[in-house]
Amino acid sequence: MDISVKADKSAGQETNAAERLASLAWDDMREVDALILERMGSPVPLIPKLAHYLVEAGGKRIRPLITLASARMLGYEGDAQLKLAAAVEFIHTATLLHDDVVDESGLRRGKKAANVVWGNAPSVLVGDFLFARSFMLMVDAGSLSALHSLSRAASIIAEGEVRQLAAAGDIDVSVESYRAIIEAKTAALFAAAAEVSGIIADRSEAEIAALDTYGREIGLAFQLVDDMLDYGGFDADLGKNTGDDFRESKVTLPVALALENATADEREFWERVIAQKDQREGDFERAQEIIVTHGALDATLEAARVHATTAREALSIFPDNVWKQALGDLADFVVDRVY
Amino acid sequence: MDISVKADKSAGQETNAAERLASLAWDDMREVDALILERMGSPVPLIPKLAHYLVEAGGKRIRPLITLASARMLGYEGDAQLKLAAAVEFIHTATLLHDDVVDESGLRRGKKAANVVWGNAPSVLVGDFLFARSFMLMVDAGSLSALHSLSRAASIIAEGEVRQLAAAGDIDVSVESYRAIIEAKTAALFAAAAEVSGIIADRSEAEIAALDTYGREIGLAFQLVDDMLDYGGFDADLGKNTGDDFRESKVTLPVALALENATADEREFWERVIAQKDQREGDFERAQEIIVTHGALDATLEAARVHATTAREALSIFPDNVWKQALGDLADFVVDRVY
Repeated sequence: MDISVKADKSAGQETNAAERLASLAWDDMREVDALILERMGSPVPLIPKLAHYLVEAGGKRIRPLITLASARMLGYEGDAQLKLAAAVEFIHTATLLHDDVVDESGLRRGKKAANVVWGNAPSVLVGDFLFARSFMLMVDAGSLSALHSLSRAASIIAEGEVRQLAAAGDIDVSVESYRAIIEAKTAALFAAAAEVSGIIADRSEAEIAALDTYGREIGLAFQLVDDMLDYGGFDADLGKNTGDDFRESKVTLPVALALENATADEREFWERVIAQKDQREGDFERAQEIIVTHGALDATLEAARVHATTAREALSIFPDNVWKQALGDLADFVVDRVY
Repeated sequence: MDISVKADKSAGQETNAAERLASLAWDDMREVDALILERMGSPVPLIPKLAHYLVEAGGKRIRPLITLASARMLGYEGDAQLKLAAAVEFIHTATLLHDDVVDESGLRRGKKAANVVWGNAPSVLVGDFLFARSFMLMVDAGSLSALHSLSRAASIIAEGEVRQLAAAGDIDVSVESYRAIIEAKTAALFAAAAEVSGIIADRSEAEIAALDTYGREIGLAFQLVDDMLDYGGFDADLGKNTGDDFRESKVTLPVALALENATADEREFWERVIAQKDQREGDFERAQEIIVTHGALDATLEAARVHATTAREALSIFPDNVWKQALGDLADFVVDRVY
């Protein structure tokens, strides 16, 4: 579910913030790519095959980019950020593999999900492999504090996923519970991805906290936009199945907001399609309609914008440079990508 | 699939080596139990519920016992071994949860497997949670080298499981491939469980290598016996489904050995039940019969005994003490438990 950035934009076209950041971090990212390829290697052929399928599937590596750019913004002169960035991407990839098993997904970034191609068993096991390899990368990076930050994030992600699973079908999930779920399942890794750069650069607690906030807030914005787009958003080409959350009976913010102001009829509808999981033809379209009627897409986007602004502001304690500018712009882009 | 030790043997009965080791390490183990309980805690109720179900299911914690006893044998005076022992058990538990999903198991230690009770999704996610928590425990233990050893083991386990998956149904799997599979999926964690004690006790490379060998060899013996018992062995009460490997078309050593000397008829039989997975009533009994005819159970047990002896001998470079004695006896017990 990474930001969809076309790398091959025609000359003359304006580039977006994610592309500009990717260009800026080009050299670092090539090293991270090499590390990723190297560390997903195994004498067991199915492992690199499956891992490759997923890593190649077009994610734009927004999380490792955040690690790389943060380290550069701080003027960090070592190279531990390369290993940590690769580790972050491995955790993310492992999570995707397991999510697809958990959600019984059909598509991932517009391609058949790995569990559809190879089955659940290899997806579970290759996820475990990448997870283990991510920790080996962190060990190589040599910072116990960075290890603490990322292993804690991994534990919080799993908690968030279980919480989301338990909440599926519950139309009384509050906006606060929803926020707790996305903070855990998505924002925690973004937060750690940014924070670890402050850790290896040996920065003050305040600076590390600012990086954590930047990552967390951009992560929240990212997930809110994602959840909005799952209801069609502004018809963006997502490379994912629109309506996935609906079919999985997940109460995301658009639904939670629509539920807050639901008429009796509408509540009955949500009760049937979400709580009883009794979904019929045309129900998704009706859900979209109700959500739009209540302005829940706009409100979700607005919430995302607030988080993006908070993310940008969190960087204010750092001196200006191109990296800080690019990270700030990335926060806005996460929201603006819908247009 | 831990060693089945009855804690409540009637007085007067002889105790076995696993029980003696458990008594010896009683105080340390209570601390590890407390850590395990604490670290599986989560505000998301399903997590401790499911983790508890598995941890309580009667495993005798043979792996963490090895970590604890090795540290004591070395006279290590810190307390990092407690966290590492808990981490080892978490990795093991996470692996069991994911294995049950991968194998579509029905029973685990005589109880319904977690995936049967709660479904695959929570089993995958709680496995991930425990895995992440194991790394947090290792971070708390404070040794990057121990982290390296255990994260490498975790990666090797996943590789072994994928290799086993890919080999399922292949009647041409050699004895060497089988050995590579069990060394990865089982022995690697035993090896790391022993080795980390040498690492935190700051021992020489030779001593750390001896501990690694001890763990690896006892792990190989353990798995060989397990694979033998899956074909009925000497009718031991295993708390698992006899015939699981057969039903999953796994070519374990008893089958590989029977295949080496198979008549044309027998080869045809294995071809049908393992390669084509066409299993009918009475096939498991026929498999047992063929295996016994070729002396493959005895040969498997004999192979296990060789590994157990190597394990005991690996300890010879350490000075004698009760812990060394108990670890040596444990190696023999792993084999003798079948009688």
